[in-house]
Amino acid sequence: MKISLGVKNCLYPMLTTLIGANVNEKPNYITIAHVGIMTLQSISLGMGKSHYTNAGIKENGTFSVNIPSVDMVKQTDYCGIVSGKKVNKAKLFETFYGKLKTAPMIKECPINMECKLVQTVDFPQHDVFIGEVIETHCDERYLTEGVVDFSKVRPILFVMNDRSYWELGERLAKAWNIGNELKSD
Amino acid sequence: MKISLGVKNCLYPMLTTLIGANVNEKPNYITIAHVGIMTLQSISLGMGKSHYTNAGIKENGTFSVNIPSVDMVKQTDYCGIVSGKKVNKAKLFETFYGKLKTAPMIKECPINMECKLVQTVDFPQHDVFIGEVIETHCDERYLTEGVVDFSKVRPILFVMNDRSYWELGERLAKAWNIGNELKSD
Repeated sequence: MKISLGVKNCLYPMLTTLIGANVNEKPNYITIAHVGIMTLQSISLGMGKSHYTNAGIKENGTFSVNIPSVDMVKQTDYCGIVSGKKVNKAKLFETFYGKLKTAPMIKECPINMECKLVQTVDFPQHDVFIGEVIETHCDERYLTEGVVDFSKVRPILFVMNDRSYWELGERLAKAWNIGNELKSD
Repeated sequence: MKISLGVKNCLYPMLTTLIGANVNEKPNYITIAHVGIMTLQSISLGMGKSHYTNAGIKENGTFSVNIPSVDMVKQTDYCGIVSGKKVNKAKLFETFYGKLKTAPMIKECPINMECKLVQTVDFPQHDVFIGEVIETHCDERYLTEGVVDFSKVRPILFVMNDRSYWELGERLAKAWNIGNELKSD
């Protein structure tokens, strides 16, 4: 039987990312799982306005999206607990830069995307940054036949409802394929 | 060793949803996995402008987000393959309406969120609809101690890179918690 839960966002799990930005010319990382895809190459970050990182994204017009693996869950959670105002979180990781020069990336993360800020959607308490992917970096060992293999990446998924991180499970079916069985023509 | 993949969106897996809208006063559903969270209660849908559903969302200013379970993977994929222009996809499901009256929801999906359209971000080939959650419906059997339990929901995750659906795995750790071990104070 259906019951009403009131206003309860259940759009989970969401992918847990580490967002990189230079703030006051130093690399800083923050954990964000309120992300999204807008178009094939555009990514959104929903970030509370009180965060230290927002000013760096606005100043440089660039940021990075780093995808940590489950073996980095402690460092990932830590970057969501402590603020760059007080702690140098970049010392946890090895930082590298790519094409954009001002979007610091985390070498230990399997995947890194450099993004150019293209638009900011203003909410009362949140900046939603929309970025366009400019370049993607990946460790070769996470590829299978040239394609990113998420069973090797082992990303960290986030669920707000139980305030927990989750693992990815097994591959289930091919998209734009398994539904063909229901076609009547 | 890091290699460059060019411009490759790797913000996956993403949650696979069935978006409901009345189009020409009839319920219609479309599969969308390019979703996102903007603020705690705001959800985004990145939808190609050619889709049949977009006009209905604009006309009514409402839509629903339905979260299918892995046992609905065929129906879910089918709703992403065929267009509502040609096929009445609503006949696959039992439809119900809630508070908003014009946002059709799928009874068979474990979770349904009614959303009010609050903003549209215009891209050349995509409408990004931003909705505010107005009411959430859930089957009681997907709750554990009153909280939505995603190990019971068994959502369908989507990866564009390998064009596949994936299952959710195991709970890994508590958020805002496991990272405390790295605090030095």
